[in-house]
Amino acid sequence: MKILLITIGDNEDKYLATGFELYAKRLQHYASFEMVTISSQKNKSNSKEAAILAEAKEIQKKITPSDLIILLDEKGKEYSSLEFAKQVQKYLNMPGKRMVFIIGGPYGFAPEIKERANQTVSLSKMTFNHQMARLFFLEQLYRAMTILKGEPYHH
Amino acid sequence: MKILLITIGDNEDKYLATGFELYAKRLQHYASFEMVTISSQKNKSNSKEAAILAEAKEIQKKITPSDLIILLDEKGKEYSSLEFAKQVQKYLNMPGKRMVFIIGGPYGFAPEIKERANQTVSLSKMTFNHQMARLFFLEQLYRAMTILKGEPYHH
Repeated sequence: MKILLITIGDNEDKYLATGFELYAKRLQHYASFEMVTISSQKNKSNSKEAAILAEAKEIQKKITPSDLIILLDEKGKEYSSLEFAKQVQKYLNMPGKRMVFIIGGPYGFAPEIKERANQTVSLSKMTFNHQMARLFFLEQLYRAMTILKGEPYHH
Repeated sequence: MKILLITIGDNEDKYLATGFELYAKRLQHYASFEMVTISSQKNKSNSKEAAILAEAKEIQKKITPSDLIILLDEKGKEYSSLEFAKQVQKYLNMPGKRMVFIIGGPYGFAPEIKERANQTVSLSKMTFNHQMARLFFLEQLYRAMTILKGEPYHH
């Protein structure tokens, strides 16, 4: 089982890196988990549209046509942790599919990425700092794995 | 303007303490902000009910009858960041009131605390690690303050 997390924009909050490493390591017990960061094009582009298009091109290089693409976006569908775990189980049941979660940059996603996505998940109605969203998502994915294995982490 | 954040249970994820300090300091620009931690009674009590009752007693010591009490609980009402900022503004308009936000322990709140609460707010439908919820909430409260001041942090 392969899971890739793509994030956009370098982490500026160094203390969070400890958390990223902690949960990425924990996730390794359940899946072949990889996390890659695409540089934000915010400061290299002339407009918001140009930035998200440049980011989209970089995202396209990381994914394959057979991947399941799940975008993390506050406008997506909200799940409880149990519901999210069930959703992850559904994906795990699709043979040969790699799950690719993508957390966008401050400007969101280009239309071509939205169209390619199999699903859009929201962690909260609230807008979070993008770096924090990574940590919350990693914890939530780890929580989903422990729920599916019947382990006592989630209570 | 006074704001108190009460959390239950010592922080076990040391790396998060950097984030707590960062946002607590930022909040100081907008309000007299204080954060206190009540020890979890989980391991000192015979039952879940005994633990939350013992925690409730400690909470009662920290609050006064005139405080506005806002519980953070996944079963509460969800807000967008803008809606939450508006809600904070409403509280700020009530003269002489201290805002007290409380993040519960793993067992939630005793009935007497739920009855005393003026409101219950949910950060997400998902269950988060309680320490992360603190960071999440601190960032959201800071974001609310910048929204109310028309500052560019939230975009």
